[in-house]
Amino acid sequence: MAAVALVQGASRGLGIEFCRYLLLNKAPAAVIATCRNPDGAEHLAALAAQHPGRMTVLKLDVNREEDIKSVAESVKSDFGKVDLLMNCSAMLHPSGKGETSLRDVSAQGIISTLTTNTVGPLVMVKYFAPLLQMGTGAFGQQPQEKAKQHSGIIVNMTARVGSIGDNALGGWYSYRMSKAALNMATRNLSIELGRGRGKIVCVSLHPGTVDTDLSRPYHRNVPKDKLFSTENSVQYLMNVIESLNIGKTGKAYAWDGTEIPW
Amino acid sequence: MAAVALVQGASRGLGIEFCRYLLLNKAPAAVIATCRNPDGAEHLAALAAQHPGRMTVLKLDVNREEDIKSVAESVKSDFGKVDLLMNCSAMLHPSGKGETSLRDVSAQGIISTLTTNTVGPLVMVKYFAPLLQMGTGAFGQQPQEKAKQHSGIIVNMTARVGSIGDNALGGWYSYRMSKAALNMATRNLSIELGRGRGKIVCVSLHPGTVDTDLSRPYHRNVPKDKLFSTENSVQYLMNVIESLNIGKTGKAYAWDGTEIPW
Ligand SMILES: NC(=O)c1ccc[n+]([C@@H]2O[C@H](COP(=O)([O-])OP(=O)(O)OC[C@H]3O[C@@H](n4cnc5c(N)ncnc54)[C@H](OP(=O)(O)O)[C@@H]3O)[C@@H](O)[C@H]2O)c1
Ligand SMILES: NC(=O)c1ccc[n+]([C@@H]2O[C@H](COP(=O)([O-])OP(=O)(O)OC[C@H]3O[C@@H](n4cnc5c(N)ncnc54)[C@H](OP(=O)(O)O)[C@@H]3O)[C@@H](O)[C@H]2O)c1
Repeated sequence: MAAVALVQGASRGLGIEFCRYLLLNKAPAAVIATCRNPDGAEHLAALAAQHPGRMTVLKLDVNREEDIKSVAESVKSDFGKVDLLMNCSAMLHPSGKGETSLRDVSAQGIISTLTTNTVGPLVMVKYFAPLLQMGTGAFGQQPQEKAKQHSGIIVNMTARVGSIGDNALGGWYSYRMSKAALNMATRNLSIELGRGRGKIVCVSLHPGTVDTDLSRPYHRNVPKDKLFSTENSVQYLMNVIESLNIGKTGKAYAWDGTEIPW
Repeated sequence: MAAVALVQGASRGLGIEFCRYLLLNKAPAAVIATCRNPDGAEHLAALAAQHPGRMTVLKLDVNREEDIKSVAESVKSDFGKVDLLMNCSAMLHPSGKGETSLRDVSAQGIISTLTTNTVGPLVMVKYFAPLLQMGTGAFGQQPQEKAKQHSGIIVNMTARVGSIGDNALGGWYSYRMSKAALNMATRNLSIELGRGRGKIVCVSLHPGTVDTDLSRPYHRNVPKDKLFSTENSVQYLMNVIESLNIGKTGKAYAWDGTEIPW
């Protein structure tokens, strides 16, 4: 049975690039791309048209539990499993810029950022874990020993600035807090879903600094050779994903496979 | 000028015990105790009555930015400074019990827990940082060198289960995530408020497993000699607080002063 990958937050940036990569390099894998406004996601529609029968685009706002539930039901009836779940959606802050200092901090700003970046991905897993447990382990490395094989992989896109230990600069309160909490969710999920039959590997991945809308306000500060294209970042991240196994679950890794401290 | 300590979340548990400790052991320190429902906080009222002129009780729901703002204004005009801010309020989950597994996870449950445990304490600091910068460094250790002296101390009450690296059991999604995010806030605050004049030390402290309403549903599982009374825990924590200086800022410590990994 062909691999099934679901990319959540696929309208643009790294999400759409994961879809493109999977379509080009992982045939005959089926790609389910979700985004909150499929009608406005022209690039995604164009990609689907270029790969007839390979990609399904579904409407899912990660802040709407009812969307998540209904997509999970439709994926269950159409595919019966998921091998890879990529949680890509996120924002820096509702204003589009991280807080420079406490002056910019507002309860509402932090709560929306946490809701989208942290709560949404976890609620995704709540509904998709049963489908990942039905996965056939199509991604990652499978050890010989059957008891150590995994059925599915969950990737939560984190950021190096979400590392508490690595934080020497401060600022970006909402985004940093949302990714630290997401890393805790990753860790918790790796424990709950890593035992029994239908083991699921769960990791946080940092894509590097990548040329997308999210990082755009800060591109001027990034040395040119440090700013990845989405193509490069996704290639690196897919290499990391293809090297995963249950022994590597519950950690945060950067694009080059090195572990990031919590 | 006498020391000024503000205990946020003082109606019961560790919060009220910090007030009692400060009244008994830190005279003539002024104690400002905040809670969301002063009329229902009889123990706090009784304590205030026992120490006339020493304790002020003010209404503050940590989820209401307007409460925080108005308490900050009244503290500013009545005291002009704060030397120690204790962020004590928290909940395990709106249901009173941490999630055992993904099945118990709901968007609304996580969001309320994050709002109370994480966002509230950070918004407190937004409004009280100027008063802590006016602090006279009455708590903690002051080094000889003037440039390294601090004006105030912020304590965010964390929990060992909020350590991502230490998490081997899973569960308690909302609470763990809220404390991991709070630890990130602590770290960010230590950076932003640790420079310039009016340095503020900011740490996360874990009180041990303490006999309060919060931990009550789990007391059966705690060996008797591992369950602290609030008196013991507060004595330990105050020893840690009195040993703090700017060199120790931005970290998480347990009741015995040992550092907790992120
Ligand atoms: N770019 C970097 O340098 C960088 C660095 C570190 C980590 N990351 C992480 O990598 C991931 C991808 O980021 P990116 O750079 O590709 O960002 P991006 O280009 O800004 O894309 C963000 C995506 O999130 C979606 N989204 C936002 N809110 C949503 C919601 N409520 N429901 C569903 N989708 C929602 C957006 O959809 P709409 O089109 O509908 O708005 C968009 O597809 C994020 O988790 C980010 O934190 C990026
Ligand atoms: N007890 C333990 O074993 C333990 C272990 C690790 C960490 N901690 C941490 O220690 C701190 C104190 O906990 P505790 O054991 O003393 O808990 P507790 O006895 O349950 O007291 C919780 C306090 O938080 C207040 N609170 C809740 N929501 C609030 C809001 N929206 N605004 C203002 N106050 C609010 C409560 O006020 P009301 O009376 O109005 O409800 C109460 O005063 C917490 O941060 C907790 O996470 C405790």
